[in-house]
Parts: sequence; structure tokens; C-alpha cells
Amino acid sequence: MQEALHTLARLLTSVAVLVAALAVASPPAGAQTTAGDPDAERKADLITAYKILVNEGILDSFGHVSVRSAKDPNVFFMPRAMPPALVSVDDLLELRVSDSQPIDPKGRRVNGERYIHGEIYKARPDVMSVIHSHSQAVIPLSLTPIKLRPVVAQAGFLPPETPTFEIREVRKDGDRGMQVTDSVRGSALARTLSSHPVALMRGHGEVVVGGSVKQAVVYAAYVDINARMQMQALLLSRDIVALDGPELFTPAEFDINRPWEHLRQKTLDDAARAKVDRAQFGLDQTQAKR
Amino acid sequence: MQEALHTLARLLTSVAVLVAALAVASPPAGAQTTAGDPDAERKADLITAYKILVNEGILDSFGHVSVRSAKDPNVFFMPRAMPPALVSVDDLLELRVSDSQPIDPKGRRVNGERYIHGEIYKARPDVMSVIHSHSQAVIPLSLTPIKLRPVVAQAGFLPPETPTFEIREVRKDGDRGMQVTDSVRGSALARTLSSHPVALMRGHGEVVVGGSVKQAVVYAAYVDINARMQMQALLLSRDIVALDGPELFTPAEFDINRPWEHLRQKTLDDAARAKVDRAQFGLDQTQAKR
Amino acid sequence: MQEALHTLARLLTSVAVLVAALAVASPPAGAQTTAGDPDAERKADLITAYKILVNEGILDSFGHVSVRSAKDPNVFFMPRAMPPALVSVDDLLELRVSDSQPIDPKGRRVNGERYIHGEIYKARPDVMSVIHSHSQAVIPLSLTPIKLRPVVAQAGFLPPETPTFEIREVRKDGDRGMQVTDSVRGSALARTLSSHPVALMRGHGEVVVGGSVKQAVVYAAYVDINARMQMQALLLSRDIVALDGPELFTPAEFDINRPWEHLRQKTLDDAARAKVDRAQFGLDQTQAKR
Amino acid sequence: MQEALHTLARLLTSVAVLVAALAVASPPAGAQTTAGDPDAERKADLITAYKILVNEGILDSFGHVSVRSAKDPNVFFMPRAMPPALVSVDDLLELRVSDSQPIDPKGRRVNGERYIHGEIYKARPDVMSVIHSHSQAVIPLSLTPIKLRPVVAQAGFLPPETPTFEIREVRKDGDRGMQVTDSVRGSALARTLSSHPVALMRGHGEVVVGGSVKQAVVYAAYVDINARMQMQALLLSRDIVALDGPELFTPAEFDINRPWEHLRQKTLDDAARAKVDRAQFGLDQTQAKR
Repeated sequence: MQEALHTLARLLTSVAVLVAALAVASPPAGAQTTAGDPDAERKADLITAYKILVNEGILDSFGHVSVRSAKDPNVFFMPRAMPPALVSVDDLLELRVSDSQPIDPKGRRVNGERYIHGEIYKARPDVMSVIHSHSQAVIPLSLTPIKLRPVVAQAGFLPPETPTFEIREVRKDGDRGMQVTDSVRGSALARTLSSHPVALMRGHGEVVVGGSVKQAVVYAAYVDINARMQMQALLLSRDIVALDGPELFTPAEFDINRPWEHLRQKTLDDAARAKVDRAQFGLDQTQAKR
Repeated sequence: MQEALHTLARLLTSVAVLVAALAVASPPAGAQTTAGDPDAERKADLITAYKILVNEGILDSFGHVSVRSAKDPNVFFMPRAMPPALVSVDDLLELRVSDSQPIDPKGRRVNGERYIHGEIYKARPDVMSVIHSHSQAVIPLSLTPIKLRPVVAQAGFLPPETPTFEIREVRKDGDRGMQVTDSVRGSALARTLSSHPVALMRGHGEVVVGGSVKQAVVYAAYVDINARMQMQALLLSRDIVALDGPELFTPAEFDINRPWEHLRQKTLDDAARAKVDRAQFGLDQTQAKR
Repeated sequence: MQEALHTLARLLTSVAVLVAALAVASPPAGAQTTAGDPDAERKADLITAYKILVNEGILDSFGHVSVRSAKDPNVFFMPRAMPPALVSVDDLLELRVSDSQPIDPKGRRVNGERYIHGEIYKARPDVMSVIHSHSQAVIPLSLTPIKLRPVVAQAGFLPPETPTFEIREVRKDGDRGMQVTDSVRGSALARTLSSHPVALMRGHGEVVVGGSVKQAVVYAAYVDINARMQMQALLLSRDIVALDGPELFTPAEFDINRPWEHLRQKTLDDAARAKVDRAQFGLDQTQAKR
Repeated sequence: MQEALHTLARLLTSVAVLVAALAVASPPAGAQTTAGDPDAERKADLITAYKILVNEGILDSFGHVSVRSAKDPNVFFMPRAMPPALVSVDDLLELRVSDSQPIDPKGRRVNGERYIHGEIYKARPDVMSVIHSHSQAVIPLSLTPIKLRPVVAQAGFLPPETPTFEIREVRKDGDRGMQVTDSVRGSALARTLSSHPVALMRGHGEVVVGGSVKQAVVYAAYVDINARMQMQALLLSRDIVALDGPELFTPAEFDINRPWEHLRQKTLDDAARAKVDRAQFGLDQTQAKR
């Protein structure tokens, strides 16, 4: 009897597995384009960005990524408050740039740090995507007087010194904690970021911005590598060579498509491996119930 | 034709796999709830804690976790002496807080360091769970005069300085080794811990306590991250910024459910992968024989 | 009964898997030898080199490997511009040593840094293979005044000090960036390399050369290990012991076949694991469509 | 037709897989005891030791382990020259302690560094097993004037300072390299080791000895952990606490069975995972052909 039940269960599970596999394998990952939705591609890239950043260890149980609407630049998309590893298109909320509040959340919980995104979109018309991470590659530097400096060739999109946001500078009496949970803190972070692609956040992580989701993700990946290389070099010698003027470049000069494709493929491979195992155990259905 | 064959194959192959999956996937992991047992949930959390801490590398072949009984606060549960990776509900013993001795062990071997747990439960009525680990993230700090300090935002549950227990201070002539194997050493450790959530143990590891198993586990995970970030920052500069008063928080202010769920899900995913392979080879039956 | 079912299931399940396995397991990986092609073996080794170096983390989304033609020493083979992880024999182009230009590219895009390879083949008649990598093991050293020195026994093929190429020394007004994208930069790099097996490239990576693809790959693997050991030793003490005269050796004295076989087998094992998962989901066909 | 062939192939492969799985799962791993062979258990432990040490990263493409014969203390067993990852019982040779020469090698190639083993067995009647590894945990220390010192509780089997063998002290004019390839070098190493369980080898690795294979393996695992903890602590402060007299212990006081079982089980789990994948691809047969 047990065997018969399992046989039936397995038949149904295999169908789910095959569907899931096809979903993972179709580039871009998660692109269930809604015909006529001008933001479909940006939302799809956002879901892929989550998968890449979780896979690279840049996002773990905290951190969030958003994208500005192509249809309406006064709106941005960001997931409800949830673990980054589980974000899907259905989890995206629409929020207003003006006050970082959600438009019709339908009972879904917003992220307390949405002001990081809204205030940066407000201050930076050029920015289309914002990543806030707790990357362990940058936190050590953020705790010291040493500024992140570009040292590896691909980090030439960084300025000679990347600013570190110190939240105490805008702390008022009675303020607690280090989270950017209101527009005062959010706009202070945006001021520290100014026109740069990155700002570290002391003891907290970083914010990385780009003219597209793809650019922000590639920037975040290279900030991580650059930070580790700079730190290791500084342990060996205080006399290290950072990139100089002719070695820096503007965003337009940096083709991010090849690193984006490399990261996306790397994430697909790893996602396929995890999906084989989870699907065989019916774990995808278990997750859906929550 | 190939699809039909595969369909048939899939529905026949995974009988054992699906059973194993159901066992792994039922939250909380290993919760063979005994109807009417007020400690069923705490014991289930304890088993999950073991899986999480082993998966995170915080427990390896040594280390142990316990939970105080909800039914009787003068009793705590802890596994018999065994590798952390294999702990199940059936391995739990009941011990007395008063003297760290087991109640009816039924021939199972108790852990020599049970006094760490008993003496802390005795000194700390607020503590419901104790973790003793040999985490390699904290041992280096424990060997130096430098104290663990909170530097990352999520570590605000730590005091400005975490004490390091030096067992030589209670060593008597003839005493050997560094294990906490009697109530004198155990109560000395509890005094060093005092009202804090953590105490390092020089050259040995740490003890982490919480108002629940979930809290202790989340604390242990963030102590690890914080220790690594503090160490790496100190290698760069002696002038590092630690959290100050307004950045610290009380346990009640730290929602540990979201990191707990993230860690639990991460552990389930990895457990599923291992179970696929072991089940296919009948290794689970092999383990049960031992 | 369960055994019979499992036996039946096993024999039905893995048709695609066995085909994939045969493809992966045939040594050397990817060797579609063309009867009568004197460069077939070198090309096959080149493909294996890519798999090994990607698996070892020495190549990631950047970096490239080439091999000189056995048939015509004025020609070398190198893939079109593409992610290292995906290189197959069909992606190889023929280029001229004299000017690093492709012979009949058939519309495939050449790699901008092909001059690294051409100029070294020109300057070094003994060199049959060139690896350019962005290995994170050597970048930190490259940023400091400290030279790579042989410290581990197997690194005795290195000279007492390995040169670091500083591209600013050949930078002309108006030159941008750090990539070796013309023969001036390429020949400058070759001059820095001189008769050595390795040259670091400040903030960029390294170039490693050998009398065969196998030798270059084994050298690259040991440069990585040596660099990490030298760096960690320097963190402990400025007074470290490097290999001296009698501890160095010539290429002829170093049997690279055993480490090459070890690396190849290690890469096969890992490739098999990834192929199991991708094959079960038809992902290989998906990739071919792109 | 292809399906029929594969079906048949799969049936045969599955039988091999199931046999392999049973072989892996039966403790101790690889114990094909030959009735009446007093050295069967030691040889079986030796094979398990190789699997554990490769899995722990202590052995990679180099390094070797041996065990003294229980039947004849003037004989020891060691594999032919081959990658550690592939060692099986059939690869073991018998060698004489007196001169490190093989007894009836049957054309199999001996390891050039067998003198490490023979000379230690000669000098140390208490030693039953010798491990020579290139562990990257100890090489950095070996390059400096700093001696390995016991700092973690489980490393109390180490003396206050572990000696570092410097091969130049016995180098004669014309000697080349750093390998221990004759009895002069071997006996010099044994003199440096003296009565200790470990000696580092500058720029090369270490030698670890024990009263059994199990003890040597557990010692090697803890030397690795201890070395890493000591190094990281030294980066933070020159003032670190090492174990003192009462914290050290004799071999008899250290129950190595629990860590050995933990390591063995950890290796079995990982071996099962690799065997699932390799067996499905017929890679085990591919390896057997070499």
C-alpha cells in the first residue's frame, strides 16, 4: 500500500521536477514575461540578481535589491521582507520613490530598510538599481579608517576612494540601532554615496548602485574581489599600488555583459544541482506552503 | 518512448527517497512529538539546533547543546556522549540542574562536560539553552588579551566586552587538562559568563546561552560572523569602531525568528542533498545498526 | 521485493546519464581527434587545461590559455573571446605569432589580449603554451614591492625572484586601462617575463608559460600554492626561508605528469557531478541553443 | 537499440554500484580481511587513513602514509608511488625497516621518500604508523623561526615546541632538492623528530607519527587545527597563551577513537556522494584501466 502511494506521489513529483527544471534552465532565469508589461525584463533581471548574489555569498539572510520602474521612474520594485534566497517575481512590491511607501502591498510586509532604495532613487536619477548587502568582504574595511580603493583592473569603475557611511553622524537622541529605517537616515546615506557607485556602511555592509540591475550586480561582485585583494595586500605592505587616473573608467567603458553572463551561468549550474535534490524530496512543495 | 520509460523509472525509483524526504522536511526537523509532552517542542528545536550548528561548522566532533525542561526547570536535556552530527531525539538524557547528574541514563554514557550546562542553568534562571562549541572563529581571539567586541550590526546583543574564561584560575594542584568536568570548574565558568550571552574559553572554544534554543543558535551564528569581522579589521588597523550604547540591544529587541528560519532552511537543503546519496546506497540502514 | 523494484528502476533511469558519462570520461576530455591533425593532441590538452584551471579557480570569467602549433611554430591556437568555463575544441582560432592576428576567424570574435600570447611566442622559442590568469592568489603580492619567491619544494622551477610587470612603464599619453591589447604592451610584458616561467602583472594577475600545456598548467597550480604559503609566512615573520640554489631545479628535472594526472582526475570527478545534474534536466541541450 | 544497450549497461553498472556502496559502508572501510593475515586490520586502517587524509585536504597529490607490520616489526607497508586519492589494499608494498627497500615489489614503483618511514621505524620502536604530508596548514610556520606550539585543548599531545627539520643541515656538496630520498636524510629527519609526535619540514610539510594508524591520523588532524589557530592568534597579538604542563597529556590519556570515528564517518558520507556520481558514469571502470 505504501509503495502504491509513493508510486503515485513520485509520478506527480516528477512532473513538478521537470517543470522546475525547465523554469531554471530558461534564460533569463524566472522570466515569466507578462505580455505588454514594460517592467517585465527589469523584474526578471531582479530575480536573477537575487539568485546570483545569494550564490556568490554577497546576500545571505539579510540584504535586498531593487529596480526602478521603466514605465514610471517615480516607482521602484523590491521584494516584501523575506529571505533573499526565496525571492520570486510574485514577491515584488511597488513602492514610491517619493516616500519609500508601498502602493497596494496586499498585506505583504515591507522591508524596514526600503528607505535605502527610495532615497537613493530620489537623489540619483541615473540609478536604476540598488543593492544593499552585508557582504563580509567589505565589513572589515568599513570598521577601520581605511577607505576602499580600486586595486584590481576590473574595479576601475570605483573612485580613488569610496566613502564609508557613518550612521552616528545623523543619529538623534533616542535613535537606536544601525538600520536605515527612515528618510532622514536614507537621505544621509544617499548624500554619502553622492555620485559614486558604492558606499560602505560601517559595521553593516554596503550599498551598490548601477544604471541597470546587471551593472549593479557586476559592480557588487567586483567590489567583493577588490576589497579582498586590497585587504590582503595591506597585510603584506602599507605601500600598495591603487589604480590611477588612466586606469579608471566610466560605466560606459565597462562591458558588464560578459561577467553577468558568466555569473548567471555559474548560478544556473548550482541551482540545477540544488533543485535535483530538493525536488526529489518534495521540498519545493514544502517551501510553497509557508 | 524515452519519456515514457523515464516516467516509469522515476515513479519506481524513489520510494525510499520520498520517505527520507518526508522525515527531513517536516518542520521542525525530527519532531516526533509525543502527545502531551510539554517538552516536545524544546527537544525538537534541540535536534534542529544540532543539525544547524554542525552544518555551520560551529560544532564538529566536539561540542554540545542542551535545553532546560519547560515542565521542570530543575531538569535539562542533553544528548549522551556522541558525535554532534548524529544526535536524534532518542539520544537525549535528562539531567538534574542541581548536580549535573543524569536521571535514569539507561546505560547511556553521559558527557563529561555536562557541568557547563548544569552550573549555568543553576546560576542563570533566565537561560533556557546552552551551547558549548569549539568554534574556530573564536579560538584565536581567546588565545590573546583581546576581548570579543560587537562590531557588526546584528551582534548588538553582545556586551561591549565579552569575558574570556581562563580555567587556570580555578585549577587546583593535581588538576589536569582544560575540560569542565566538575561543578567547581562549571560554576567558575558560570561566574565568568555572569549575565552575558557568551563567554569565550581560552584555547577551548565558547559557551553561548539564550532564552530559547533558537536564540542561542542565532547568537552563536552571529558570534562567529562578528569574531571573524573583528579579527580581520584588527589585522588592518588597531583603530576599529565597535558598536556603542545606542547600537546595542536587548534580547527582546532582536527578532531571531528570521535568521533561525534562514539557517533551518539552509540546513534542510544541505541535509536533503546528503540524504539523496546515502539513501540510494542503503547507508541509512547501515548507520542504524551501530 | 524492494530490491527487485530498485533493480528495475536503476536499469531504466540512467540512459542519458550513461551517455553523458561516456562523453566526460573519455580521456583526454574533449579529444575529438581529427585523424592526421598533428595539433590534435595539443588542442585536446588545451581544452583539458581550461577545465582544470577553471576547476582550480585560477581562471574565472577572465583569463585565457593558448598553445603553439606543432605543425607550424609561427601559429598558435587560442579560443575566441568567451567565458573560460565553456571553451571547446570548436572555439579555437588560429593566430599568427608575428602580429597576433587571426587566420580566417569566420566571424568569431578574437580576444583583445591575444598580444600577451603572440608576443611571448615571438620572444620565447622555447615556450609552447601561455596562460594568462587573474588568479587571486598572486594579485595581493603584485600590488606590493614584494616579489614572488619560491618557498615550497615543488616551486623550485621559479627563479629567486619573479618579476612583476608594471604596465605604466610603457604607457603612452592617451593610453587607458591595464589590458595588454597591442604589440607594444605585449612585447613589454615579454621583456619583463624574459626567460622566466612566470611574471606577475600588477593589479591584474599573471602570465605563466611552459614547454607544453601540461607544464604551464602544473606551474600555474604551484605558483598559486607557493604564493599563498609565502604570503601567510610573511604575515607571521619577515624572516622567512626561500629555496636556495641547490633547491631550485630546471624544467627537465620536474616530472609534471603526476600532478597533471592528479589535477585532471580531480577535474573529471567534479565535472561528472555537475553533468549528472544538468543531464537530468536537459540543461545541456538548453546551453547548446545559446 | 541504444536504449536496449544502455538498459543492459545500467543493470551491470547498478550491480557494481551496489557492491561499491556496500564496500564503502562497511566499517572499517575497505576491510577485506584475509583470514589469518595478522596485518589485515592495520592495512585496512591504512586505506581508511588515506581516504580520511585526502578528504581533510591533508594529503593532496603528494604525501604518503605507512604502517609497521604486526607480524614482523622489521617490515612496514606503504603504497607504491601513486596519487593518495587512489590507494587501495592491492597497492601496498612491503618494505624493510633496515634499508627502506621493498621486498618483492613485482614491478611496482616504490616511493622515493620511503626513507622517511623506514628511518623513523628504525629510530622509534614505539611508532607503528608514519604520515608524511604537504599540509598547507603547517608550511607557513615552517618557513619562519616560529615553532608550532600547542594552543588548542585537543593538541595537548604536542610538546611545548615542535621541531622544524631543516634539510640544509645535512646537505652535502652536490645534493639537490629537498626530498628525503636516502637514509642519511631520513635518519637526520628521525633525529629531528626525536621522541616527538610531529616534526615540521621547512618549505615541505610535516611528518606525524603514532602508536597506531588511527592515532597518527587524529594527531595530523589536530596539528592542522592547532597550526591554524596558532597562526591566526599570532596575527592578532604576539602575546598568546600556549598550553602549559598540566594541560599537556600523554598518548595514553587521549582517547582518539571518538575523533577517528567522526573523521571516518565524515569521509564515508563524502565518499558516498562522490561514488554516486562516479559510478553512474562508469568512471570507476575508467580509473581501473590505468
